[in-house]
Amino acid sequence: MSDSIKSNPTRKTHSLTPENKETPISFVQTDVTSAKFFYLRNHFSYPSFTYQNHWLSISGLVDIPMLFSMQDIRKLPSKKIKVVLECAGNKRSLFQPKVFGEQWEKGGMSHGYWKGVSLLTLLQMTGIKKEVKEVIFESHDMGTQPSTDQPLPYSRSLPLNKAIHPDTILAYEYNNEPIPYKHGFPLRLIVPNWYGMASIKWLKHIKLADKEFGGHFQTKDYVFYPHVNNDNDSFPVTVQNVNSSIQQPTDLQILSTGKIQITGIAWTGKGYISKVEISTDGGITWSNALLKKKESYGWVSWSFEWVVWQTGEYTLLSKATDSHGRVQPESPFWNRKGYGYNATDRVSVKIE
Amino acid sequence: MSDSIKSNPTRKTHSLTPENKETPISFVQTDVTSAKFFYLRNHFSYPSFTYQNHWLSISGLVDIPMLFSMQDIRKLPSKKIKVVLECAGNKRSLFQPKVFGEQWEKGGMSHGYWKGVSLLTLLQMTGIKKEVKEVIFESHDMGTQPSTDQPLPYSRSLPLNKAIHPDTILAYEYNNEPIPYKHGFPLRLIVPNWYGMASIKWLKHIKLADKEFGGHFQTKDYVFYPHVNNDNDSFPVTVQNVNSSIQQPTDLQILSTGKIQITGIAWTGKGYISKVEISTDGGITWSNALLKKKESYGWVSWSFEWVVWQTGEYTLLSKATDSHGRVQPESPFWNRKGYGYNATDRVSVKIE
Repeated sequence: MSDSIKSNPTRKTHSLTPENKETPISFVQTDVTSAKFFYLRNHFSYPSFTYQNHWLSISGLVDIPMLFSMQDIRKLPSKKIKVVLECAGNKRSLFQPKVFGEQWEKGGMSHGYWKGVSLLTLLQMTGIKKEVKEVIFESHDMGTQPSTDQPLPYSRSLPLNKAIHPDTILAYEYNNEPIPYKHGFPLRLIVPNWYGMASIKWLKHIKLADKEFGGHFQTKDYVFYPHVNNDNDSFPVTVQNVNSSIQQPTDLQILSTGKIQITGIAWTGKGYISKVEISTDGGITWSNALLKKKESYGWVSWSFEWVVWQTGEYTLLSKATDSHGRVQPESPFWNRKGYGYNATDRVSVKIE
Repeated sequence: MSDSIKSNPTRKTHSLTPENKETPISFVQTDVTSAKFFYLRNHFSYPSFTYQNHWLSISGLVDIPMLFSMQDIRKLPSKKIKVVLECAGNKRSLFQPKVFGEQWEKGGMSHGYWKGVSLLTLLQMTGIKKEVKEVIFESHDMGTQPSTDQPLPYSRSLPLNKAIHPDTILAYEYNNEPIPYKHGFPLRLIVPNWYGMASIKWLKHIKLADKEFGGHFQTKDYVFYPHVNNDNDSFPVTVQNVNSSIQQPTDLQILSTGKIQITGIAWTGKGYISKVEISTDGGITWSNALLKKKESYGWVSWSFEWVVWQTGEYTLLSKATDSHGRVQPESPFWNRKGYGYNATDRVSVKIE
């Protein structure tokens, strides 16, 4: 009977077609996110293509256009890096006023080890013409969505300097296994430090270009629109904001007096997390949390022991600072599509 | 590859010890809730006891105290009824002001076929002394929780008239299978029309008494406390309120113009659902939804075809009426522990 008593967390379902589910982030405290808890964020139904036909093409402004089989790619020098992938809409449900779109809580993010070849390695084989400004990536998946009239493939670009960063990789393994189909098998672009929309699954084509790419997923979607009724002052979603989340306790939880472990995670798209501060009095006073070891682009786990003997209601806050001096703001940067929420994290608890 | 493309909904995790998870109610539209989607609401860790030792005792104010084995119980005449079980805290997250406790969304409920023997059948064998007022039920599970100082078993009572209703059954099958362990194997009390806290899992003892039972789970918990700071005017949680939920679309979803199916469910603890009305203009005008067939104590599914050609933001509402004339209120009955939420259901959508 012991097996039937085991309690595993499960992902919250936002939609099934496309499949969008978030990681049970408050209940997964292991060092890497296993594939079964990894958040799912898709724009379309899953693509269907046969692995046997899978070739990666690199064309456009190169010296030698090339086709790579998975065998070719696996023979090249590889690297394995731990990376936080975070949906640009992570925490969207926390915006006030509410924004339309899927109401992601804190679980639109996961981290683990991605192994693959640096895109730079392949581009050194094809050559890069000197007028290249951007590298455009196209996925096998395509379809329509409410705001588009006709089918379009999932496609985005990176500026050349980000594309040739040695840690921008074409990954074929996640946590030492082939990447699961739903997460981009057989080949996924991994762009550390950028929001997850850049880490394109089911990678099919790469094209080098001398001008800015005007694709839907970087000129219409994945754009910060600061105003309700017009598109003024808009700018694209790219690098992750400095951020932190309280995993335990959960919001509006009822607890007993005594020692309470406040635990959570922090991450940033620039440099590293230098400090996580905790307030147990709604932001009046702050203390440093204990940071655990962090690897490459993974998140850092933190903990704070709170001793409380007085019953009542408390507001707990976490606030991360990164090595570039970026600090989580008290209020989020509201934008119409609800991207990049990174206000200080907040949970209310009642001590009985 | 087709198997790996299948998308099944998963339950949202509220806590693991005890295990509390809600049904992905917006994504499960089948006629019964399968065990893997059934909501889990526990007060303690799972009890451990051996099936071989499982005996049900009936004692107290009876003529003949008796012990029943599962074999005894399975030999008696049985009945199979479809029942909605709904956590008293279902939709707690919707209260304003917020209340402390687990923030259940709409999925603290499930329905399916329970098969077992009427409690009345057993009580006819033991006899019922004429001074009996209540029947007390005790489960195998026990433990502590924040508001209690010492271990206590999960135990509650029913007034005699409800206990001897022929549809109050001791169930041993769910959807034609033995009840899964997490849902009360081998024997669960099923109390149609009452909130789920009455349908006690892992049933161990039944005792007949001549006075009101003062157990924690009906005098402290599962009590409506209408005031923030005192216990005045409190009364116990019993019969389900009339209620309805919109399953699709989901709140803050972005949709395209055209025909949109609004679908959902409705249920009540008194009589049957006589009407479900839908508003697509925030409550100014209402139209009747189409009700599907309903069995015994199951919920009724409903649908409404909405044709919309004008882009913009809309508030959709559903409002159920039952055969006792009870109607969902515009605002919920706020209470400190957040039970029995049944305001008209509401989702906002944006048509693009």
